[in-house]
Amino acid sequence: MLYVAWSDGVLTPSEIDTIRNKLQKQDWLTDSEKTILAGWLSPASPPSAKQLQNWLKIIRESGKQASESSKQSLVNFGIEIARIGAGDQVKRCTTPEACEALEEIEEVLGVVGSEAVRNILSDEKRPTEEPSLAFPEASFDVSAMMKLLDGEHAGIRHKVRRLLSDPTFRYEYGIDTATYRERVLAWCTKLARQGLGALSYPEAYGGKADLGGFIAVAETVAFHDLSLMIKFGVQFGLFGGSVYQLGTEIHHKKYLRDAGSLELAGCFAMTELGHGSNVNDIETIALYDRETEEFILHTPSESARKDYIGNAALHGRMATVFAQLEIEGDSYGVHAFLVPIRDSDNSPMPGVQLEDCGEKMGLNGVDNGRIWFDHVRIPRENLLNRFAEVSSDGIYSSPIASASQRFFTMLGTLVGGRISIAAAALSAAKSAITIAIRYATRRRQFGPPGVAETLLLDYPSHQRRLLPLLANAYAIDFALKYLARRYVERREEDQREVEVLAAGLKSHSSWNATHTIQECRESCGGKGYLAENRFGALKADSEIFTTFEGDNIVLMQLVAKGLLTKFRHQFDEMKVLGLVKYLAERAATAISELNPVVTRMTDEAHLLDADFQSGAFKYRENHLLITAAKRLKKRIDEGKGTYEAFIECQNHLINLAHAYIERVVLEQFLRGIEQCPDPALADVLKLLCNLFALSRIEKDKGWFLENGYIEGAKAKAIRRQIDKLCLELRSDAVHLVDAFGISDETLAAPIATKMY
Amino acid sequence: MLYVAWSDGVLTPSEIDTIRNKLQKQDWLTDSEKTILAGWLSPASPPSAKQLQNWLKIIRESGKQASESSKQSLVNFGIEIARIGAGDQVKRCTTPEACEALEEIEEVLGVVGSEAVRNILSDEKRPTEEPSLAFPEASFDVSAMMKLLDGEHAGIRHKVRRLLSDPTFRYEYGIDTATYRERVLAWCTKLARQGLGALSYPEAYGGKADLGGFIAVAETVAFHDLSLMIKFGVQFGLFGGSVYQLGTEIHHKKYLRDAGSLELAGCFAMTELGHGSNVNDIETIALYDRETEEFILHTPSESARKDYIGNAALHGRMATVFAQLEIEGDSYGVHAFLVPIRDSDNSPMPGVQLEDCGEKMGLNGVDNGRIWFDHVRIPRENLLNRFAEVSSDGIYSSPIASASQRFFTMLGTLVGGRISIAAAALSAAKSAITIAIRYATRRRQFGPPGVAETLLLDYPSHQRRLLPLLANAYAIDFALKYLARRYVERREEDQREVEVLAAGLKSHSSWNATHTIQECRESCGGKGYLAENRFGALKADSEIFTTFEGDNIVLMQLVAKGLLTKFRHQFDEMKVLGLVKYLAERAATAISELNPVVTRMTDEAHLLDADFQSGAFKYRENHLLITAAKRLKKRIDEGKGTYEAFIECQNHLINLAHAYIERVVLEQFLRGIEQCPDPALADVLKLLCNLFALSRIEKDKGWFLENGYIEGAKAKAIRRQIDKLCLELRSDAVHLVDAFGISDETLAAPIATKMY
Ligand SMILES: Cc1cc2nc3c(=O)[nH]c(=O)nc-3n(C[C@H](O)[C@H](O)[C@H](O)COP(=O)(O)OP(=O)(O)OC[C@H]3O[C@@H](n4cnc5c(N)ncnc54)[C@H](O)[C@@H]3O)c2cc1C
Ligand SMILES: Cc1cc2nc3c(=O)[nH]c(=O)nc-3n(C[C@H](O)[C@H](O)[C@H](O)COP(=O)(O)OP(=O)(O)OC[C@H]3O[C@@H](n4cnc5c(N)ncnc54)[C@H](O)[C@@H]3O)c2cc1C
Repeated sequence: MLYVAWSDGVLTPSEIDTIRNKLQKQDWLTDSEKTILAGWLSPASPPSAKQLQNWLKIIRESGKQASESSKQSLVNFGIEIARIGAGDQVKRCTTPEACEALEEIEEVLGVVGSEAVRNILSDEKRPTEEPSLAFPEASFDVSAMMKLLDGEHAGIRHKVRRLLSDPTFRYEYGIDTATYRERVLAWCTKLARQGLGALSYPEAYGGKADLGGFIAVAETVAFHDLSLMIKFGVQFGLFGGSVYQLGTEIHHKKYLRDAGSLELAGCFAMTELGHGSNVNDIETIALYDRETEEFILHTPSESARKDYIGNAALHGRMATVFAQLEIEGDSYGVHAFLVPIRDSDNSPMPGVQLEDCGEKMGLNGVDNGRIWFDHVRIPRENLLNRFAEVSSDGIYSSPIASASQRFFTMLGTLVGGRISIAAAALSAAKSAITIAIRYATRRRQFGPPGVAETLLLDYPSHQRRLLPLLANAYAIDFALKYLARRYVERREEDQREVEVLAAGLKSHSSWNATHTIQECRESCGGKGYLAENRFGALKADSEIFTTFEGDNIVLMQLVAKGLLTKFRHQFDEMKVLGLVKYLAERAATAISELNPVVTRMTDEAHLLDADFQSGAFKYRENHLLITAAKRLKKRIDEGKGTYEAFIECQNHLINLAHAYIERVVLEQFLRGIEQCPDPALADVLKLLCNLFALSRIEKDKGWFLENGYIEGAKAKAIRRQIDKLCLELRSDAVHLVDAFGISDETLAAPIATKMY
Repeated sequence: MLYVAWSDGVLTPSEIDTIRNKLQKQDWLTDSEKTILAGWLSPASPPSAKQLQNWLKIIRESGKQASESSKQSLVNFGIEIARIGAGDQVKRCTTPEACEALEEIEEVLGVVGSEAVRNILSDEKRPTEEPSLAFPEASFDVSAMMKLLDGEHAGIRHKVRRLLSDPTFRYEYGIDTATYRERVLAWCTKLARQGLGALSYPEAYGGKADLGGFIAVAETVAFHDLSLMIKFGVQFGLFGGSVYQLGTEIHHKKYLRDAGSLELAGCFAMTELGHGSNVNDIETIALYDRETEEFILHTPSESARKDYIGNAALHGRMATVFAQLEIEGDSYGVHAFLVPIRDSDNSPMPGVQLEDCGEKMGLNGVDNGRIWFDHVRIPRENLLNRFAEVSSDGIYSSPIASASQRFFTMLGTLVGGRISIAAAALSAAKSAITIAIRYATRRRQFGPPGVAETLLLDYPSHQRRLLPLLANAYAIDFALKYLARRYVERREEDQREVEVLAAGLKSHSSWNATHTIQECRESCGGKGYLAENRFGALKADSEIFTTFEGDNIVLMQLVAKGLLTKFRHQFDEMKVLGLVKYLAERAATAISELNPVVTRMTDEAHLLDADFQSGAFKYRENHLLITAAKRLKKRIDEGKGTYEAFIECQNHLINLAHAYIERVVLEQFLRGIEQCPDPALADVLKLLCNLFALSRIEKDKGWFLENGYIEGAKAKAIRRQIDKLCLELRSDAVHLVDAFGISDETLAAPIATKMY
């Protein structure tokens, strides 16, 4: 017992006093024994290192012979050891009084007897356990889950997976940028040869008119190197896509086949140094010259240089250039033009100046560059003229009369790109979560003495860290499939809603990726920091997903405006006003009374009820919408302009957009489960969905509490329910990531694919 | 007016109906006019693009002559234009009835007249504004603030700043790893030549016995390349520091001077592949051989290989190796040994196998490696014997009898490293926030028509994003200075508390860095993604700060245990128990009654009152402490072991640790302000402190609401107060980052140092 007392090197004066007093009262100890013991208790001369080590040795040796039952208490164990060591002599200390006294001392020391005994006895090598043993079979059919996730594009996804698993696509770390860029180009060409680049184009130009398939390809390619995915997207989605969607037959015939085969590498040159999010204000000018029937492209100032343009530094030979169309002094707004930027032997075309953006945080396999135009002439037919035409004598015409509607229609071509980015972000998150969860089912660290160390995934903190991220990935998967379907099947009247959905889900998915990859890296400790384990690239490459194809903060405000106008108007702030007023007036009745019983309900059935969950999401969205309208109206009534009013309510609007997107995600998850034919799949999906819904509510519980939607006790019950769900999902977790279907070759992270 | 109506291309049927009806009733219109107007209103044949463009042109031209007052309303403006265009004819539509009708139409369209007019008239080039004009002078003396932050080590900080601004230290991007490593070594050598490496060693060995100065150097070096800071820390802090702190005179004499001058590059080899956070279970063995008076270092299994060891891949010639000491079959636990690993021409010593860890996510300027020992013999004197000695005949002795206390004392040598990492993380965060805030005072994007675009820092969302991070940086600065002081001045009885503080602040500061750099990158858009703007390196390099020198999640649990034992015991879980029981029993009285008036108070004076703020922080900490104790006790009473009980309460304990650290940070910030002699400084610091305190409360408002500490209305008031504080800090923000004193050369990011 004294070994335990001293084992951490500190006995407080009061502890010593108590023990001393107790000892003095023990009749069964001889005086000399008391003196020895008292000596051992002296803080001035505590037992030496050697002495303690000896005690331990004696205790351990005797311990081997001690009975199991005696190990339940330090006192009994001590007596047993004494018995073993000293035989009968020991009897005098097995009297009830002696035992009691010793137990009191145990109490003072504040130790749990059985545990203390275990600690003392167990310095032998820890047993190591086979990780496989620790993990039961899946509760569901993993390949069925994979099929469910793959959905209607299972065939093409499978094809891409096979391709990417080919040794050609092996990763290499620490290679220089020049080599890397050529490798990514070669990879991209390989995918194009398989017909994947042109997939969304009409059959006449080598495609299959399969837009949904194209998005599925982009999503699957994103399991691999993200530079490849981005180069793929720039070439076939943005460049080829703009030719296809903004151009007409003449452009299609001339360029589309070559764009799809990567014979003609191209750029999508919209952003300028001074004008990123605010495309409307770009400065590049396309002046129509009636004499020669040409447009003259020109960069009027440094802030007008095209910047960050993918494919521009090295490989691009043509660019879809966005510029302000001017005809005889009149400005007609932003239009897109096809401009050759390099000739066949890759030197810049006359008047075109090109520059490399240089090293980036990530995506260094993509050659981003800058473009300046010095009065570059292109033929009239190079205007991508689906939405606007300039006749040879300079007469402007367009099927879309409104300049702002025309502008947004042209930008609508970005929607496909946004969906691909959202999907690619999800893939990156899935890769990260797969690596982290697999590692957590193998890595052990710390543990109670004498048994194998604890698996990381058995730590509640680790479960809390990873499993909600797994739930997010599943949730977003359903939402993005819904979005892709809506996009592919969209009709004119859906266009706005699809745009808003795409903007919101792109933001949601890209932020989720950033967050997920971060947590996953941290949860893999030092291993997560090695390049070979992929987090470095995943993090750095996906980092920009929150910015390009529309900055998230900017997009979220567009989403909110879409909600305020019920998707009717093209973000025209002035037009929003009427609806804002309408909403603000509805306010009093629209936010329904809260039912005090419901705000308090904490039972499991209630918390896991889809109606409670989606009710909460809907309430929040509606509340934020109505109050946003009220706040806007108040400002406008005070005489502020709409621009100012919107800016002042920015944070509110961003919250509204979050609430809307989360509601959509939950709704689609629930719908997916409802439609799932396999009950075993549905069961585990329901667990994930519950975890998603509740952890989102928990994340924003401040809001729900603040607005009286839930009470404190309910918030606490939600926390406990999440803990429980994490525990329930723990054994299926590794199977749930397997169902993402990322091959070992593609995942490539040693910590995820083999025991080291 | 119809131009506005059609300008976004959509008029709803009900809008059209209303307008049509109004038109019909207008007596002042001729029938043919009505027909023309009705035609313009037909959704089937809306005005053409050319037509709208023409309208706009006419309006604009007339608009130039229109009076300012008429521009307040679309109706008046319309009339004015009509007047200008058609002269007197217009009279018939200036009747009151006509005006009223038109106003009603304006209402139906839901537009704000004055704004609509402004929009129509303003497509001319936006004026651009000099950014400097937008920013008033600082409200305080920037150099005085810098002096305050530099504190007692201003001199050495200044010296390091000067050094780092030298062209030798220029950054280069995209260089290969081999070159990079040599460069960092050369940089490190330069710092050593300036006497900075040895600073904390005694004067006899080339130092100045200035531990505080050494931490200040590490902090300042971290404004530059973080590989340099880490290499510096490994060499002088971990390797040299272990020789100094774990060794005795014999080691000091032999190695300390060379360690400090980098003549002798060394490693700190603790972590093994299988054993990271759990150092106690490392497997490397140091077996004492009495015959030869040597220790035999051996790696018994693959999981025992030393891993991630800085300086091991290339430059290290000696290593402080942690291993399990064994003497004649007895194990004495973890001890540190000096082991030569490379000879003078840099080949591995016999029996030593070395390997490069390869490419990492970041810090590639540091050569991390692996080490295997195959029965490597070292002389007995190579045991770092300050805390334990083995005599020539194999007798073990130690001034610290308890094995666990000895272990923790040895690990105590890590505390200095942890403090340096906390300080370096703060520097990285400061660099990021400096870049982002400077950029936000120059970059404009979007804006109301006709005026210069809005500065990013004028967006409330941008303020909300960046300014709390600025407040965090200031707050942590004060806390770390307090920690460093406590560390330097520590006496034995402080040791535990200092360790807990260091563990907590290291976690807090490193997580803060990760979060800050992330937000700052996002808030710089595409520019933030270019390597030249530093975020790439800052992110990737500082990423591992949350993991090494103690994983944050693990450290936070140690902090919580420290609190549960009131810093008395060495994390001995068994010993915690007594205190847990005591705390749990105190529970009923310890959590004071909440005052319902206070939970509701929302006035500014109250919210900005330090007593309210620190009261909230203390309440949360105390509440979490007591409830943690209760939860632990409950589990133990149920018969669970302490290990299990602690694991089950993990998340609670981590929250407790957060609450504690935040309380300390706030306390130190308040103290710093109290002691600040300059009222202008104190004023702006108080703003920052308020922002820090309130934004932390807001971040955790779920907890405060859940536990009834604040009510909903108060939470909302806090949100508004934060918005207000952000606005108040906006104009000083750029001066507040200037006060960090990061030179332009060191910051190096073009977006932060020059107008592009
Ligand atoms: C690797 C990479 C590849 C790219 N590829 C292409 C390409 O191929 N083609 C192409 O055309 N472009 C490309 N881009 C450009 C990209 O689309 C832009 O970076 C993006 O649109 C953001 O613009 P910006 O960088 O100018 O940021 P800004 O618009 O200047 O935004 C900067 C910051 O200000 C904030 N902000 C801006 N406006 C507001 C507001 N109203 N309210 C609140 N906050 C606001 C944003 O949230 C952001 O944090 C690429 C960029 C990168 C980095
Ligand atoms: C770049 C770099 C440089 C380094 N330099 C050195 C050096 O010079 N010398 C040296 O000795 N070491 C060095 N290290 C090693 C470093 O100290 C370890 O990586 C660190 O201690 C974490 O150990 P680990 O990687 O084994 O992670 P683990 O301990 O395995 O932890 C992995 C994950 O599990 C979680 N976890 C672990 N235990 C628990 C628990 N009880 N409860 C909840 N969660 C838990 C952690 O939070 C973490 O997320 C370096 C590492 C790196 C990456």
